[in-house]
Amino acid sequence: MSLTNLSRRVALGIDIGGTNTKFGVVNHRGEVLEKGGLRTDEYQKVEDFIDALSDSVQPLIEKYGTAENFDGIGVGIPNGNYYTGTIEQAANLPWKGIVPFGEMMKAKFNMRCTITNDANAAALGEMLFGAARGMKDFIMITLGTGVGSGIVANGNLIYGHDGFAGELGHTIVKPGGRKHWSTGSEGSLEAYASATGIAITAKKMRAEFPSSMLNQYPEDAINSKTVYECAVKEDPIAIEVFRYTGQKLGEALANFVMFSSPEAILLFGGVIKAGDFILKPTKLHMERNLFPIFRNKVRLVFSELDEADAAILGASALVLGSMK
Amino acid sequence: MSLTNLSRRVALGIDIGGTNTKFGVVNHRGEVLEKGGLRTDEYQKVEDFIDALSDSVQPLIEKYGTAENFDGIGVGIPNGNYYTGTIEQAANLPWKGIVPFGEMMKAKFNMRCTITNDANAAALGEMLFGAARGMKDFIMITLGTGVGSGIVANGNLIYGHDGFAGELGHTIVKPGGRKHWSTGSEGSLEAYASATGIAITAKKMRAEFPSSMLNQYPEDAINSKTVYECAVKEDPIAIEVFRYTGQKLGEALANFVMFSSPEAILLFGGVIKAGDFILKPTKLHMERNLFPIFRNKVRLVFSELDEADAAILGASALVLGSMK
Repeated sequence: MSLTNLSRRVALGIDIGGTNTKFGVVNHRGEVLEKGGLRTDEYQKVEDFIDALSDSVQPLIEKYGTAENFDGIGVGIPNGNYYTGTIEQAANLPWKGIVPFGEMMKAKFNMRCTITNDANAAALGEMLFGAARGMKDFIMITLGTGVGSGIVANGNLIYGHDGFAGELGHTIVKPGGRKHWSTGSEGSLEAYASATGIAITAKKMRAEFPSSMLNQYPEDAINSKTVYECAVKEDPIAIEVFRYTGQKLGEALANFVMFSSPEAILLFGGVIKAGDFILKPTKLHMERNLFPIFRNKVRLVFSELDEADAAILGASALVLGSMK
Repeated sequence: MSLTNLSRRVALGIDIGGTNTKFGVVNHRGEVLEKGGLRTDEYQKVEDFIDALSDSVQPLIEKYGTAENFDGIGVGIPNGNYYTGTIEQAANLPWKGIVPFGEMMKAKFNMRCTITNDANAAALGEMLFGAARGMKDFIMITLGTGVGSGIVANGNLIYGHDGFAGELGHTIVKPGGRKHWSTGSEGSLEAYASATGIAITAKKMRAEFPSSMLNQYPEDAINSKTVYECAVKEDPIAIEVFRYTGQKLGEALANFVMFSSPEAILLFGGVIKAGDFILKPTKLHMERNLFPIFRNKVRLVFSELDEADAAILGASALVLGSMK
């Protein structure tokens, strides 16, 4: 295939979340040429969702010629299984059980369709187009409502024997610690380092310290954004919320480093807007818990991708990155 | 290369420990055709060690023809770096700093020489000749004086960006927990699940329970073997020592599973002689701490390799497994 042809080829990247679905046409330089979206939660039947998706996407495909011009469709979706193309027991999606999503998409669009979970897709996006370009060993941690992860070793995503590797948000950082609101596990990373976890920490700490600025907000306004606002205004309790979160995150990252010895750990998601308030304690506690040969080697980096496009880029990287 | 030729080809496997070095000639079926050994700790200079090794090994090489008949030399050695062929800052070896061991061996033996740490070599040995045959995703945990590990994903050992991936013995299972006698870290897996850690646990527990059979032994006779003897005689404290150890190990394994989702975890080393006393609580606490999609999927398996030959087989697998 000539370079001229390659430059005209594109992929469809689709990011499916519990509430919204975003899609876009992406070229080999990582430019999002077109984008659009639809609600996920309006479709109780997966068939209806795929029909609606097709109605929205078909005009874009026609704009770029035919399905022939597409390298394929990449889909990032919770509990998406790379090996089988199925979605399995996804708690936050309307479609229950095991859904043969990849096959259904292929039949509808007449293109190959590769799926994986959203955090794995994000890691691929960073490797192709973002802060992980040129890296063969890195770990991507997404800090949003939950904590997701994608692990790249020897230049490949680790999928594990069943396609579900890289659920680092569910690893236990404090045995017997905070009970997870949904899984019931005690002391998982997600229970502390997600936006949800930070809100819980903030609510506990402001109750202990009535003088904290955090007490000026109503209960439902306490989130990582308002904690950040108070931290900027030098409220010591708000700063302590991020320090504590960073400690738990840093302790977890140290264990991850001793597993796969990555060149860098990439952080992505709403929580990283707290900047140094969370980055500094995270780095401190990661280093402190590392076996000496790993110290001062691993870079802690924020994602470089535009947050609005990152999910689409990551999904498209699933097929753009694997061209034969 | 014809199969006939292949069947005549062999490799030299060398396992270098702080005290002893073992070596052997291994064929492609994993048969140890010849073996021998020397003391490691008698040679303060690495050059003298390599000279002595050469004197012992040369007769074996001549027996199998010439260096031409050998696929190469594989070396398992603490802190051995697969990428650079160097030994780096190995606490238990007489040779300090960064030693260009692979280059020195190549110059001496006129064969390619591949090195890695002993636990990685053990994992390769299991993949080629042992309980992990046919597996593409598994984790090997060696439970001896220390706790080592080798991680295989997508059919390849994970070396990480610097060659030092897979130091799972140093991951923290109990933040702020037992201080490690050598590294100073608090609450590492090695501090609990190594033979050394088990002896510490046993000494603490027998002091609390004067009626325990463990109190019939002198202090320096308390080790995983004597604890096992008491457990077999149904001493509840000895049984509790293994239960507690298995709990810590199981909690750690759960985190490892959520990292790389292996098909199996292989356990190897002196500690596994405790059999079900340690295996059952390990399995229980692993499953209990797993995110549901991982439950009842991962096999916990004991190594199948003869312990006396395993290290040599593992080292030879470094070159037998990578024939081009």
